[in-house]
Amino acid sequence: MASRAKTRAIAPVVRRFKRGFRWGAAELKPYKVSAHKGGEFRGASRQVLIGDRSEQVDFHVRYFELEPGGFTSLERHRHSHVVIAMRGRGRVLVSETEYSIAPFDTIYIGPEKPHQLRAIGRAKFGFICIVDAERDRPRPL
Amino acid sequence: MASRAKTRAIAPVVRRFKRGFRWGAAELKPYKVSAHKGGEFRGASRQVLIGDRSEQVDFHVRYFELEPGGFTSLERHRHSHVVIAMRGRGRVLVSETEYSIAPFDTIYIGPEKPHQLRAIGRAKFGFICIVDAERDRPRPL
Repeated sequence: MASRAKTRAIAPVVRRFKRGFRWGAAELKPYKVSAHKGGEFRGASRQVLIGDRSEQVDFHVRYFELEPGGFTSLERHRHSHVVIAMRGRGRVLVSETEYSIAPFDTIYIGPEKPHQLRAIGRAKFGFICIVDAERDRPRPL
Repeated sequence: MASRAKTRAIAPVVRRFKRGFRWGAAELKPYKVSAHKGGEFRGASRQVLIGDRSEQVDFHVRYFELEPGGFTSLERHRHSHVVIAMRGRGRVLVSETEYSIAPFDTIYIGPEKPHQLRAIGRAKFGFICIVDAERDRPRPL
């Protein structure tokens, strides 16, 4: 480990899906880093599948997972979210409406819509979230 | 049906996943329209989940499905593809390398990489494909 220069890794072709909803070549990270100064959240993790390895795309693809009882920050921003539910059951609040979500339901959260996702029941709730590569910082509500 | 003006539909929040890998509010379409003048392909269909309803995003999300024996065109283009396998087994050729693909494996196909996907075995092979909203036309090989 002579050098810890901050290089962006070369993008591999396949990020292999593994047991427990992990992907090869995707690091398990906290849902948010403290620098984000986000609102309250609980029991949430993040894997960046596409976006931190010099991929030439206008979007990033992340997988988020909420423990039972977990939820994301209630927040809004100019950029949109596209969410594809992957495991477990959840609820998503978009503006004043809450929707029950099951695997492969696909959700569009438009600009400046206040939103929050939460796990429902005893299982983990996991979902893909796709966003524009260039985007503004979320604002907690 | 007084008017058939070509308006872009308002984006609903939830595109509900249904039996047989169909999504509510997503029309089942041919893989390619003839205007594309694409290369040879077989047994392929397409549903646009995000991108044809005025969604404010820099990317489109489509679900493609290949019948047993089906395959997409061998083609290349400047824009990248991100593929998330959803059902069945497939193979993806990227440049000179072929990769076996199972559900939730995620694939990055970089700019100008010749590529082709095919279904393997007796089941349908379905996958999400995410692309930049602004992109060049594929060129068959």
